[in-house]
Amino acid sequence: MTASPRFLGIAGSLRRASTNRGLLRAAQAALPEGVSMEIADLTDIPFYNADITEKPASVQRVLAQIGQADALVLACTEYNYSLAPALKNILDWASREPNNALLAGKPVALMGAAGGMGSSRAQYHLRQVCVYLDLHPLNKPEVFANAFAGAFDGEGNLVDEKLRGLVGQQMVALRAALPQG
Amino acid sequence: MTASPRFLGIAGSLRRASTNRGLLRAAQAALPEGVSMEIADLTDIPFYNADITEKPASVQRVLAQIGQADALVLACTEYNYSLAPALKNILDWASREPNNALLAGKPVALMGAAGGMGSSRAQYHLRQVCVYLDLHPLNKPEVFANAFAGAFDGEGNLVDEKLRGLVGQQMVALRAALPQG
Amino acid sequence: MTASPRFLGIAGSLRRASTNRGLLRAAQAALPEGVSMEIADLTDIPFYNADITEKPASVQRVLAQIGQADALVLACTEYNYSLAPALKNILDWASREPNNALLAGKPVALMGAAGGMGSSRAQYHLRQVCVYLDLHPLNKPEVFANAFAGAFDGEGNLVDEKLRGLVGQQMVALRAALPQG
Amino acid sequence: MTASPRFLGIAGSLRRASTNRGLLRAAQAALPEGVSMEIADLTDIPFYNADITEKPASVQRVLAQIGQADALVLACTEYNYSLAPALKNILDWASREPNNALLAGKPVALMGAAGGMGSSRAQYHLRQVCVYLDLHPLNKPEVFANAFAGAFDGEGNLVDEKLRGLVGQQMVALRAALPQG
Repeated sequence: MTASPRFLGIAGSLRRASTNRGLLRAAQAALPEGVSMEIADLTDIPFYNADITEKPASVQRVLAQIGQADALVLACTEYNYSLAPALKNILDWASREPNNALLAGKPVALMGAAGGMGSSRAQYHLRQVCVYLDLHPLNKPEVFANAFAGAFDGEGNLVDEKLRGLVGQQMVALRAALPQG
Repeated sequence: MTASPRFLGIAGSLRRASTNRGLLRAAQAALPEGVSMEIADLTDIPFYNADITEKPASVQRVLAQIGQADALVLACTEYNYSLAPALKNILDWASREPNNALLAGKPVALMGAAGGMGSSRAQYHLRQVCVYLDLHPLNKPEVFANAFAGAFDGEGNLVDEKLRGLVGQQMVALRAALPQG
Repeated sequence: MTASPRFLGIAGSLRRASTNRGLLRAAQAALPEGVSMEIADLTDIPFYNADITEKPASVQRVLAQIGQADALVLACTEYNYSLAPALKNILDWASREPNNALLAGKPVALMGAAGGMGSSRAQYHLRQVCVYLDLHPLNKPEVFANAFAGAFDGEGNLVDEKLRGLVGQQMVALRAALPQG
Repeated sequence: MTASPRFLGIAGSLRRASTNRGLLRAAQAALPEGVSMEIADLTDIPFYNADITEKPASVQRVLAQIGQADALVLACTEYNYSLAPALKNILDWASREPNNALLAGKPVALMGAAGGMGSSRAQYHLRQVCVYLDLHPLNKPEVFANAFAGAFDGEGNLVDEKLRGLVGQQMVALRAALPQG
């Protein structure tokens, strides 16, 4: 582990006031000392297509961020009881590097905001994806946020103190999951 | 049920020689008498984003096809042990119509071509999506095609006779699942 | 459909004051006119074992009830994010009849009481089981009851009026799903 | 990690000639140097029931084995697209110890023999169970054995050399996953 580990946050929702990006900002505000965290911008990422031999610049940029990250923080938007395509899609792009070099063995924190089940249905699908990608999601704590019960303000910021505390605990657990340097 | 039921085929892969689109062509070639089937073109469909208030023409075109279909045939490409984003994404777009009018209650046939497990991992995720969308996937027969064992030619055409027969049986079952008119 | 359809309720928990059996009693109290419903007793059912060639009397008794039922009401206890073994086990016993005669094509209502997610994690596993068993679970309404938030009394009786209403709606939907006679 | 790590094998099938127990014997025959491995006997384990306050001796015996094990090898029999109750049931018993002391943090290897999909459907359900139990299943290699294609003899012994090699690789990976002592 480097002395200054880097986390990369990726959210599945593309809307401006996304509560899932709000969760990532709460994670940024609760990082353990010495840890830094960027949030990936998926705006211009096209659908993965095996016929595309030249990776677009937008894809290259995010793949470089993934490659430099020591761990990932995935804010798992749920649509219709499964994954949001934008999050799944960037993982699909990242999975095509030789020897799975961008992903293999990295620790992952999963969180999500959705209706009453807090994106749990999508998160369990994402955990299955992590098996193939050889990512290592934390077992605990799980972060399931109800997006419609006052936990977020109108800009998607997480204002619920209990959930902010839980996100902070998860960031501590993610740092502890990094390989010892 | 109309006298001339319409099926709509949708595949998750965007590549030209997609084996999953090959499965859909095999379905078209094995339709019960009186049934017609189009294949949706997902080429220009953007990612769903709740901030987009005006649906793009490409989306409107496919949603109209879904609305006119009596049943769906979903060729469920598998990437990294779960759904291909392009397939999930068009279902997400379709799910936002008032009263779920495009999807509610429609029978669905699931098929897929992938590695050794024949896309089964992705198909079970898709079945969970169908719960929320109120789609009714057939239980049997399941169609799991190994994409790398000679069942398809270089253009993605299904050349395996046993699998072609199975696809035909599934189309018969899908027609039988239509509500009686 | 017979004029007097029969539902059979099966719960995964064996404890005396089971909230999942409480859900089944709430279903019995909310049956549509003309419908009857028994609750299976799993107390003495042994684990399925392919070496047992003679079915024990306790198994025969429940399998007979399943065979006579027009539809099943499964109260899906959740242990450790998946199915309670007692419920899965009786379905495994039932699945071994020639031609899947006890189960094939029957409509099913799923409900469950558990912690905050209301057994949803187990119910989605049970839905996958239904694919192989050729059972037809209702898509809606889903019944997820929090067992620890005052919805049940100390004997496991469902006392929450909103949930009792939801269970009643589900019984109406289950009756409507029976094949027309 | 102790100098002489202990693995414990648990299989879901109770039949005498179980192929899943055959996989465990293949694992025993392929242990890395210094590792020992027992196989649990689930014959007399009753269904978990929260009303049982005194654990039966059969349960106590297996829980003691689990407590002493540094890692678990779970041979995941698949019945009807999900877990075999006997395997799930012993994990449910083990999960009730204070502070999850028997299971928390232990590495796990998953393997299974079944029909064409090699128990994969059940294994992904078991992985979800591991999240709650705070077990750490290996991502790779996955071991999916077709029980009906000549890989096993009539006594359930694994005779396929390629699969025996894969099981051996998995045991090496399991040893490498043990915490450094």
